[in-house]
Amino acid sequence: MTAAAAPPARAYRRLSVEERRTQLLGAALTLFAHRAPDEVSLDEVATVAGVSRPLVYRYFPGGRQQLYEAALRSAAEQLKLCFAEPAEGPPTERVVRVLDRYLAFVDEHDAGFSALLRGGSVAETSRTGTIVDEVRRAAAEQILLHLGHDAQSEPAPRLSMMVRTWIAAVEAASLIWLDEGKRPDASELRDWLVDQFIGLLAVTSASDPQTASAVAALLPLENITGPAGRLADRLAPLVGVAAHLLPPD
Amino acid sequence: MTAAAAPPARAYRRLSVEERRTQLLGAALTLFAHRAPDEVSLDEVATVAGVSRPLVYRYFPGGRQQLYEAALRSAAEQLKLCFAEPAEGPPTERVVRVLDRYLAFVDEHDAGFSALLRGGSVAETSRTGTIVDEVRRAAAEQILLHLGHDAQSEPAPRLSMMVRTWIAAVEAASLIWLDEGKRPDASELRDWLVDQFIGLLAVTSASDPQTASAVAALLPLENITGPAGRLADRLAPLVGVAAHLLPPD
Repeated sequence: MTAAAAPPARAYRRLSVEERRTQLLGAALTLFAHRAPDEVSLDEVATVAGVSRPLVYRYFPGGRQQLYEAALRSAAEQLKLCFAEPAEGPPTERVVRVLDRYLAFVDEHDAGFSALLRGGSVAETSRTGTIVDEVRRAAAEQILLHLGHDAQSEPAPRLSMMVRTWIAAVEAASLIWLDEGKRPDASELRDWLVDQFIGLLAVTSASDPQTASAVAALLPLENITGPAGRLADRLAPLVGVAAHLLPPD
Repeated sequence: MTAAAAPPARAYRRLSVEERRTQLLGAALTLFAHRAPDEVSLDEVATVAGVSRPLVYRYFPGGRQQLYEAALRSAAEQLKLCFAEPAEGPPTERVVRVLDRYLAFVDEHDAGFSALLRGGSVAETSRTGTIVDEVRRAAAEQILLHLGHDAQSEPAPRLSMMVRTWIAAVEAASLIWLDEGKRPDASELRDWLVDQFIGLLAVTSASDPQTASAVAALLPLENITGPAGRLADRLAPLVGVAAHLLPPD
């Protein structure tokens, strides 16, 4: 075999337009994940992708802003996939798995996630706001499915509001978690957020009949060793301290 | 008494610099409260204040942006006052009063509140973001005081995180409430947000000893006819449905 017959070195293979775009987007995502958009330059994207700056401009004539929005759209699609979860087994355990994937995403895109949700950057526009809102809507829809809502009908208003406020709480907790150097461990944060979810379902069912019937339908799927059972067990001591608030038997 | 001796008509009295500034700010606040900042023009501020456009510029040479930030700062000070509440009586009833004032503020500044918190407007900058964050911090500090935290020491980390996630949930619920034409009634929304607060305290105390001891210290201040007692009463039916999750007696 002669040297001339060897396959061309990998670095010289021509990428298709789609492959090149994906490669540039990957480089952009890596950079935007760990820094605020204003701190990332096109030169860096070119360097990370191992291409020239003019090539980046050929694919993204709108420069950094276009690249940022494309990267954000790609990250949003990735994040939406985190919410997909088969409707099997105890609902609280499904929420555990969704949150594990969500927190892994937050961990992976830390600084970019913070910058995006905190706003105040010139790169945030009504378009980036719309992308974020779409992700929130997708998350709410998925969670509502696991709460027994069928996709064809309007969800119960209070239950829907509850899920959306819980998602806001999860976002806020994620931002605080990033600020505090990712303490406590992601698994401890996740358990607490699941406890919050169960607590919200309980108190909302106390004032909203539609939530109460959704909860009544879900409870038989839960078991004593799962998140709901473990929370009930840990709440037992509180019942003793709050005896004066409980209705007489 | 001759006509010449009559006091000058009110409209012609010269306002002091401070009075004029306050008047312009008042006009701006009225306009920014009910519309997104991009939709308010300086001409309108001048019209509402009954002065000329050049006069508005004399006081706010930075134009709309400067006026918007000044109005926002003034609204932020007003909002911070809502959180002040004497440390007397059942803590949940204090939270009721704080939330009543907060929701009245949201009701009063509806469109401006939405535009500000949703972001995406060119008027939102890192300065406006800082003002909003200061309000959130002030709210969290006040709530922590009522949970028995003394202002001199660092608050318990999980309790502090809980209060901040609850504030995020309150904000999210307020935005949804505005979107849905202020339904349900503010008092019903407030009761539900107080229930959420109690639920969060309960589940957080189930995994965090510092929250558990704060809750144990607060519970004797609560009574059976207050928000905590009424929630406990309404939760009783749930205990029946969840019997299979409860530890055996």
